[in-house]
Formats: sequence, C-alpha cells, structure tokens
Amino acid sequence: MLLILKTPLDEERLARLRRRLAEAGFDSEIIDSGGFSLLLIQGDTAGLDTDMLLASGVVADIKRLDAPYKLASRQYHPADTVVKAGGVSIGGGGLCLIAGPCTVENEQQLITIASSVKAGGAGLLRGGAFKPRTSPYSFQGLGEEGLKLLVHAKEITGLPVVSEIMDSSQLPLFSDIDIIQVGARNMQNFSLLKALGRQEKPVLLKRGPGATYEELLLSAEYLLSWGNANVILCERGVRSLGRRNSLDIAAIPLLRALTHLPVLADPSHGAGSSDLVFPLAAAAVAAGADGLLVEVHNAPETALCDGQQAVTPEVFKEAAAKWQAIHDLVSER
Amino acid sequence: MLLILKTPLDEERLARLRRRLAEAGFDSEIIDSGGFSLLLIQGDTAGLDTDMLLASGVVADIKRLDAPYKLASRQYHPADTVVKAGGVSIGGGGLCLIAGPCTVENEQQLITIASSVKAGGAGLLRGGAFKPRTSPYSFQGLGEEGLKLLVHAKEITGLPVVSEIMDSSQLPLFSDIDIIQVGARNMQNFSLLKALGRQEKPVLLKRGPGATYEELLLSAEYLLSWGNANVILCERGVRSLGRRNSLDIAAIPLLRALTHLPVLADPSHGAGSSDLVFPLAAAAVAAGADGLLVEVHNAPETALCDGQQAVTPEVFKEAAAKWQAIHDLVSER
Amino acid sequence: MLLILKTPLDEERLARLRRRLAEAGFDSEIIDSGGFSLLLIQGDTAGLDTDMLLASGVVADIKRLDAPYKLASRQYHPADTVVKAGGVSIGGGGLCLIAGPCTVENEQQLITIASSVKAGGAGLLRGGAFKPRTSPYSFQGLGEEGLKLLVHAKEITGLPVVSEIMDSSQLPLFSDIDIIQVGARNMQNFSLLKALGRQEKPVLLKRGPGATYEELLLSAEYLLSWGNANVILCERGVRSLGRRNSLDIAAIPLLRALTHLPVLADPSHGAGSSDLVFPLAAAAVAAGADGLLVEVHNAPETALCDGQQAVTPEVFKEAAAKWQAIHDLVSER
Amino acid sequence: MLLILKTPLDEERLARLRRRLAEAGFDSEIIDSGGFSLLLIQGDTAGLDTDMLLASGVVADIKRLDAPYKLASRQYHPADTVVKAGGVSIGGGGLCLIAGPCTVENEQQLITIASSVKAGGAGLLRGGAFKPRTSPYSFQGLGEEGLKLLVHAKEITGLPVVSEIMDSSQLPLFSDIDIIQVGARNMQNFSLLKALGRQEKPVLLKRGPGATYEELLLSAEYLLSWGNANVILCERGVRSLGRRNSLDIAAIPLLRALTHLPVLADPSHGAGSSDLVFPLAAAAVAAGADGLLVEVHNAPETALCDGQQAVTPEVFKEAAAKWQAIHDLVSER
Repeated sequence: MLLILKTPLDEERLARLRRRLAEAGFDSEIIDSGGFSLLLIQGDTAGLDTDMLLASGVVADIKRLDAPYKLASRQYHPADTVVKAGGVSIGGGGLCLIAGPCTVENEQQLITIASSVKAGGAGLLRGGAFKPRTSPYSFQGLGEEGLKLLVHAKEITGLPVVSEIMDSSQLPLFSDIDIIQVGARNMQNFSLLKALGRQEKPVLLKRGPGATYEELLLSAEYLLSWGNANVILCERGVRSLGRRNSLDIAAIPLLRALTHLPVLADPSHGAGSSDLVFPLAAAAVAAGADGLLVEVHNAPETALCDGQQAVTPEVFKEAAAKWQAIHDLVSER
Repeated sequence: MLLILKTPLDEERLARLRRRLAEAGFDSEIIDSGGFSLLLIQGDTAGLDTDMLLASGVVADIKRLDAPYKLASRQYHPADTVVKAGGVSIGGGGLCLIAGPCTVENEQQLITIASSVKAGGAGLLRGGAFKPRTSPYSFQGLGEEGLKLLVHAKEITGLPVVSEIMDSSQLPLFSDIDIIQVGARNMQNFSLLKALGRQEKPVLLKRGPGATYEELLLSAEYLLSWGNANVILCERGVRSLGRRNSLDIAAIPLLRALTHLPVLADPSHGAGSSDLVFPLAAAAVAAGADGLLVEVHNAPETALCDGQQAVTPEVFKEAAAKWQAIHDLVSER
Repeated sequence: MLLILKTPLDEERLARLRRRLAEAGFDSEIIDSGGFSLLLIQGDTAGLDTDMLLASGVVADIKRLDAPYKLASRQYHPADTVVKAGGVSIGGGGLCLIAGPCTVENEQQLITIASSVKAGGAGLLRGGAFKPRTSPYSFQGLGEEGLKLLVHAKEITGLPVVSEIMDSSQLPLFSDIDIIQVGARNMQNFSLLKALGRQEKPVLLKRGPGATYEELLLSAEYLLSWGNANVILCERGVRSLGRRNSLDIAAIPLLRALTHLPVLADPSHGAGSSDLVFPLAAAAVAAGADGLLVEVHNAPETALCDGQQAVTPEVFKEAAAKWQAIHDLVSER
Repeated sequence: MLLILKTPLDEERLARLRRRLAEAGFDSEIIDSGGFSLLLIQGDTAGLDTDMLLASGVVADIKRLDAPYKLASRQYHPADTVVKAGGVSIGGGGLCLIAGPCTVENEQQLITIASSVKAGGAGLLRGGAFKPRTSPYSFQGLGEEGLKLLVHAKEITGLPVVSEIMDSSQLPLFSDIDIIQVGARNMQNFSLLKALGRQEKPVLLKRGPGATYEELLLSAEYLLSWGNANVILCERGVRSLGRRNSLDIAAIPLLRALTHLPVLADPSHGAGSSDLVFPLAAAAVAAGADGLLVEVHNAPETALCDGQQAVTPEVFKEAAAKWQAIHDLVSER
C-alpha cells in the first residue's frame, strides 16, 4: 500500500504513524522524490484500516497496490472457480441458465413453469418465497410454504433450485434448497453474509444497485473468509441517470478479470420490461457471462410479482437457443 | 392512480385488467381524450401492485396521484412528529445534536467523549458497538460489550444513547439503548424493519447511499405500518459522480415537505473528512435539519474507526454554538 | 399533456392558467375524480413550456402523453430511417462498422490504418482532426490538416470518412467529409446543432455522458427541426458509480424503440481499455445496434491519443467477423 | 506522477516507455518494493498524456501527485483571487449576490426587477438573452436585443450585468456586458473556452451537471492558460439519483480548498422550485460560498422561462438579509 504524504510534511505525526504501523506488524519505507514524499507499506495490507491512516493527519491520499479482497481476487487464483449445485456446474466455460417465476404462487403454476423451462434448456429452477419488497403493502411471498413447493418441483423435474434468503434466522428453512440467493438490497447485510459464510451451500450474491465492483467483491470476501468457497456473483443493474436498474454490461468482463468466481447476469431486473429481456440477455452472453437468471412465467398478466418483466416459456425456449449460439461464438476465442 | 394506456388500445386485455381490479375492490374509470385513453383508479391504491398493472400489456405508464407511503406522508399528518427518547425531544422546532465516537473503544474513551460532548451542547450520545464494515478484515466493533459501556456512559452523564443494530437477533441486547439506529446499508433490510416495527423504541433510519426519497419513506412506512410511530430519518450522503458519500442537501427541505417525521443530517459520513464537518453541518442546519449526528473523538489519530472524519470536543463545542445560531436565524421565518 | 393539480385547488390561479393556455391556442379540460383534479391539455404540446405551467402555482406535477420530440419519435415514423453517406447505408437492417484512429497523426499512419480496416470489413473511416480534450495541455489534434489527410485517405481507399466538429465556425472545412460527428460534450451545444441542422450532410450525434434518452432525442430534434433529416445516434457510455464512461447497453434497444433514427455504439470510449472493446462491441451488436464506431490503431503504444483503448487491425478483422455473425443471429427474429 | 506497473513486468515495453518519456523531457525512476514496481515521473507532468502511458501496455494504474490544473490550483496560489467586474468584487471574503430574471423579456420587466434586486442587496444584475434550451420548441431568448436591454438596465440602476454566451461568434455582442457566463452545458465547449481565454472580461463558468471537480477546474484552466485570469466558478447542481439538478453542497468547501478562484452557488437551478431557493441558498452560504446567483422575477406566474424557480423581489430582499447574517456568522472563524 502506498501513501501519498501531505506537503509540508509533519515529521512528528509521521513518526507516530510509522510507530503505530510497526506495532501492527507492518514495515514502512519513505520514498522522497521531486518534492513529494511517499510511504510504502509492505506486506498483506488487506486488513489495514485506511480510516486510521487518513486520520493520522499526514496522509493526503492512499493507493492500494493489492486488491483488498485476497480470496476473491483472480491475482492469487488464476483458474476459474466452478461451483457445483445439485449436479449442475456454474462457471468454467459453459452457459448456465437459471429460470423460473419471480415468486412461487402455487403448486400448479410452479410445476408448469419448471417443466417448461427445463424443456427450454434451463439447468436450474428459480423462484422467490421470501420477497424483499420496497413497499410494506406489496405481496411479501409465500415464505416457508414457497420453499416447500420449490423442493417439490425439484423432486418432479430434477432441476436444482435457487431461492432468496432475507435474514439469517431463515437459514434452517433452506436445507433442501440448492443455491441460496442474497438479493441486491442485502449485499451489505454483513450479519447475513457471516451466517452464510459459516455453511457450505452455494451462495448467489447479487450486486447492489449502488455498489462498486470492489464493494461487491468485498461482500464475496465475507463469504469466502468465513469459510464458504461456493460463491457465484450476479450483475442485475445499477442506478444510472434516473433509471432504476440499468444493466452494467462492462461489469461482466471487468468482474471476470478481477475475480475467479462465476459471473451471471440477471437481464430481467436489468430490463424491467419483457421486451428488453432478450436483447439484454444476448448482450450479457456476448460480453462473456457464465450464465443468466431469467424470470419466466406462464401467464405474466396475472403474475403476483414482476409480471411486466417475465417472458413466457415459448419465448424463453427460442431465446435460449440463440443465447447458447452467441455463447459458442464468443467462447471460441 | 392514473394509468396511461397503450395506443392502439387492446380492448380485451383492458377488460381483463378492469375485471381484476374490480375483484381486488378498485373502481376504475376510462377517460378518453385527444387520441389518448387513461384509466383512473379510485381509492387507496398504496397497496396496489404496479407490477401487475404493467404486466397487463395495456399500460404504457403509471402516474400515482397519492404518495405510496400513507402513514409517513405529511399530506395526512400535517403537524411535525416529535419523537421523545430518554427525555429528549427530536423534531418540532429545536435543534437536536447527537454526538460521540464512531465506535465505542473502551470505558475511558467513551466517558471522556460523552462528558465533553455534553458540555459542548449535545443532547444525546452516539457510539457504535456492532459496526457494518465494507471489508471483513476491518474492526467489527466491541458488540455486546460496547452496548454495556454505552449504558454505563448514560448512567454517568445522563445523556440518552443511540447505537446501531445490524440484525433482528441483536434486538434483546438493545433494551437499555434509547434510540436504535438502522444504518444506510440496512435501509432495505425488511426483516429487520419488521422486527423494529413490532416494538416501540425510537428508530433512527439512515437513508441508503443509492436510495430515492420514496424508497426511504417506504422503509419508514414498514416501521410505521408494523406499529412503531417513533421514527427519525437521517440524510448521510449519496453516491454521486464517483464520490462515495455526497451529502444531498436538498433532501432536507424536500423530506421535511414530504413527511412529518424529524429529519436529521449526518455531516460526518457526508464529509468523509473532518475539515468538511463544520461547513456541511452548517449547511444542513441552514437548510432546515431538525438535528445533527456528529462523530466526535478525543484523539482522532488513534480512533479505531472513521478517525479521519471525527472532530475533537473543542471543535465540536465551538461549532455547536454556531450551528445553534444558524438554526435560530433560519427558524424565525 | 396531463397536469396533476395541487390540493386544495386555487380556482382563481387555475382560471388564469387556462386563460393563458387558451391565448396560446390550447384547449384544456378539467377532470375531477376521487379528490383529485387533473387538467388535460389537448393538441400538440411539444412546444408548450412546462416551466410556465409549473410557475402557475396550481400544478403539482406534469405527465406528458406525447413525446416532446415529434420528428425523432418512432410513434409518427414507424419505419427505420436509413442514412446514406458516400454510398454507404446506416440503419435499416445491416451492421455498419466505422473504424479508424482516435486522431489523425500523419499520412502514413492514416493510410495504413484505413487500408487495413477496409480489408477488415469497415464501411467507413473515422479519424479525429479537432479533438475536444479535457485538459488544455493535451494534444488538440491536427485541425484542418487532419481533415485534408482524411479526404486524401478517402480518395485512396474509397472509404467515406467521419470526423468531429467542435464549433460552427469550422463547418466550411468539412465540405468533403461524409459524416460530421458531434461529440458527447457538445451534445447540447445548441448553436452548433442549429448550424448543422441548416445543412444536409449526415450528422453522427453522440450521447452526452450525463444525458437522458429524452435529452439526446431533443438534441436530435434540433437537427431535424432545423431541416436536416440525416441524423445518426451513438451511445458511448455514461457516468455511473464513479466509472467515467460505462456503456449503457439498454440504451440500444430502448432508443431503437423510441426513435426511427439509426443507433450506433462506441465500445472504445465505453471501454476505456482495448481488452474491453471486443466484449462490449459484441454486447452492443447482440443488443441490436445498427453499427459500431471502433478505434483502431496500427501501433497503439505510440498513438497520440486514446492508445489504451485502440485495437490493432488484426484484432479488428477477427472481431468484425464475429460481430457480423452475432448480428446475423439476432436479426433473424 | 506515479505509475503502478503491471505484474509480471514486461521489461522491453518498459524500456520503450522510458525512452519515449526521456524524449519528451521527463526523467523517470523505478521503485521496486514488496513484489511491486512503480515508475515515478519527475517534473511538471500536467501536460503529460495519461492515454499514452496506459497504451504502453506496462502501466496498471496511474496516481497523479500534482493537480493537472496548475494555474487554477490553490497549491501554487494560496491567496484568494478577487475578480472585479464593473467596480464590484467577487471573492476575497464578502458575499456577492447576483440576481435577476432567468430571461430578459422586455424593458419594463427588466428595469422593475433590476431596481428591486438592487434595493434588496444585489451587487450585480443577471439576465439571459441567449438561452440554451433542451427542446428546440422552447423560447430561445431575445438574443442581441436582450443584451441591449441589459446594458440599458445597467445605465439606469448602476448594477454591472451578467449574461450567458452560447457560441464564440456571439462574443462581439458582449462588449458592454460585465461578466460573461458559460452555462453548464457548455462547460466543455473548448472552442468557446479558448475564445473567452483570449480576452479579459470576467467569465462565470458553471459546472456541468455530470462534471467532476477536476473536469471543472481543467475547463477553468483552459481560460487561465489562454490568458484570462478573471475566472469565477459556480456550482448549480449535478445529476443524482434521478433528480435533474441536485445541489452538490460539498463542492463549495472542496472547490474552495482546491482552487483560489471564487466559488458561487446557483440555488435556483439546484432547486428547480422557488420553495427550495431559500434553504439551498442558506446552505450554500453556510458552507462558505463567495456568492449566489438567484433568479428573481416580479411575476413568476407569467415568466417566459423558469418561473417555477424564481422568487419575488420581496422574498429576495428578506432572504438576502438572512444570507448575509449567515455569511457573517460562518466567516468569523
């Protein structure tokens, strides 16, 4: 880590800072050059608090030389991580399609959709049971009953299932769920991340709508450093120029360069409208995504949630074939 | 609620939509004019799901005529809400100063700071025990021990205390804390909001760095609709043009117009640097804030957290007098 | 146009507003319903100043029923506009590749690159002569000499040429340039737009990094309403979460739905790094772009400008074939 | 300037880069430490093109040690710059109020407003003649006639006048205008900046709604480096979370620390509504602004432009006294 020191330099404060660094086990070296002084701190500085450095009164600016997320960084783990869930692989070269309704509504709806997305090429089934809703007056999901229906759909179709958790107290209910999703608004719910880091079930971590890449990777680092190596990332749109969720397409190649973890895209939330799902999903695949999370509903008009951005099973099937073709084209390089 | 309908109009789908609305208890009326058709939905539409409306296939756009947060809205509650905590009033005309260290470090530090901010004019003491940190390698707070030290500081100084909760499971530990703070990153942790809505202790709800006013007020609505009327809002900076936390000064007069709840400002997180605390706090007071949340530390250089944005007790005391003078000036109107 | 009126309604001010609307030739109709009053203004309201409506003191909010850009809107011109430049078509189904150096440096560089991008599949040659640079100390381009070299390259290779204008006084120098580019920072230079609207040469209008779709389309409307029908739009990245230029992939399908004008993407500025050019360009094509604007340089290391985001002719050729294949795949629908 | 080099290091490319730097007159020094290599470039690197450095293929990241705007930087010019216009001083400790209508409409309107803002404490009169409007169908200003009316108002009231220029070709018309305003959308119209840098009349440069502090200061540097020392900056709101213009209050203290140039605030555009003008202006003054640019209209309801954000002369007078009192309070420090 490199500190750019303030001019003129307060030697006494600098000495105090270096003493505190030494006590914490860090060697530091002063570089003087052209009117500027730098302080180079050696060693693994991921755990070094930059607040403390800035509070010293002698530091003008800080430049990290190392990523602060050592376990998530591709620098130390060049090979792609492949996460396995219910016999399906995510990451490592293939294109993984996760499809299903925004929210589980009832047995018939779920089985109908699950069977049709399986026929359309999906590798996993998604469905919300606990729904984080902006308004307290919106439908909040079926809860435990929804999870049971998902497990039932898995038994019938053989598709592993993905569902969202909202609070660490719900964890015991997820024992038969294959991948636990952490929603965008809980990306920095650190209590939840610690709880999920203490167990081994794969976690699909969505990027918050205002989160930088570094913040997302540090949230992944919570999971990894607490012991769970099965982490999947997902870009689903950021706040941008007043649009609620604008898919950040550059996030896909950039995250894949920064980390070894699989990177999915959710074109449905990024779209907010079913017409946009195909082009945004095609774009995400063309940009190198390891997979997609797509909302599919057999009767979008009557969906209890997010119907406006759901595609029908027929549209999904046709689109899935094109996404696969684009994936094959761009993977040749 | 007003729906702008798509052109050309699909009469059959419109009929289906109106039937579903009628089943849900909503009367609707078609307005035809100048080539456009509108559908006006009568009654309290706060709980009406706009997703379902958009999924109908006939709705081009939606214009709410009513705020979706009925309990938080000033429209139905014109008078300022005054929240009482440990004998201190927040809202209703006065300027409430909440001051203290970012994080509770030890007894001596806390008592020293608590006594000095009391002498400087603070009405409440703040201090973090559970700390939400972006990196898993940063200091995570003293936890339960920190809360005990805060209660001890309250006994000695008489100042009511404010501290942050990170998870609903921690709630029993907050029995002697006067105001429970929900941090910016948990603003949409709906499980936590429901748990805090089921009890009566005042909640200080910070605006998330990417949250709109409507989203903040809907999070407040969770607390209010689950039964807790003691809600205080706090603006602490938003993501803007690459700066991490840019204090949104317009939020103060705008939120005060939209809601009857007290609106505080946190100039320390908005600043990120102690030099900026005075001007940003002065600006927030000039814009009409009901109070401030200020980080004060007796030795910022050695603070375990956020030292770079803490002011000393001496600076706080002098500044507090000016903030009060500005408050008096602008409140005359 | 629909006005949502303030509650309680100030009848006298409303009467004054309606009188002023009538004087300006607009009929208006009051709709009363469920405690709310609306004012519906008939006719073509594109030229109606919303400032004046808001200043009336009775208007709470405004909802346009019509796009404010009538000439650019697809609503009134459903068919794709095809712009012809030097015998090449842009829009209407094909994929148009515009490639070349960020800045024209000298004859040899330009001819080398022009020949190679032609061989690689480019339909037009781009090259900057007048360069808008953030810093006054950066290289500002060869100016008129650069334009002459471009025309020379056109004579040799047969490729029509595209170059950026910075000021209306430069217009006479562009007589042999085929497409005049308006850069992102001049998107709202209305004096320049009016001057370019008064002539017929095609204009490639780049979206400003902070501009909404509506603002871009209103800038296009300046060109169209002053008489120039040959307008091409280009998405090149927006400010987002601190990244300088983040390609807004949703802009491509959304703009194509809103307008009949061709929509290109510039993956080079959206990328800021040559590694990102291929995936971002592939994504833009997959999302439905009518073409790409790509920076190609034979020796990026020594380029006078933007070398870090230029690709070599070899990379361009191989990539162009894949972009075309993706275009063919997604155009089948 | 400090370059963080890529790992593993390509020694050959590094040698080529250092050779090119040496040819351009820059000494460079390699610093090796803890697995990282840095390249420190000595001397005045403001004119050194970072694109070229990044294109070298060996540079992972760049850290400037010096501001790239040397003339605008407070580092080299610690004392406040005081700009004089028509006998009035801007900067250097006082509070300068510039007030008047958004747009000049006619003689009577202008003289009425000019006299009243003078009585209310304004030091200069503002008024738009050339109006940059988002839509081509909005009122575009009186043009040259508007400037003549402004000069007439100056003769009558004695107030120096400020008006906006849109294109360098309009410069001759501004000979009797005291301060030339460059609007937010022209902040990076570099042709215009160069033209204004070649003359000596004070320039009021507004920050673009998507511009960083560095970009604003580099635009000021255009003016300064082309020879005009009379530059005034103005914060008027940035794009933020979907609001069109959100006053960036931190810009005021931060810009004042970065530069010696006077920093004004425009609370009218930052507000977008007359109710917000007082609190935002009060906040800007409390945060240390050198002055305000306020839209005042005697009959906001019938204003041709921006009536919704204009205050009346009566409101202005009362507010101006409070703004002055706040200025006096915060200037004591």
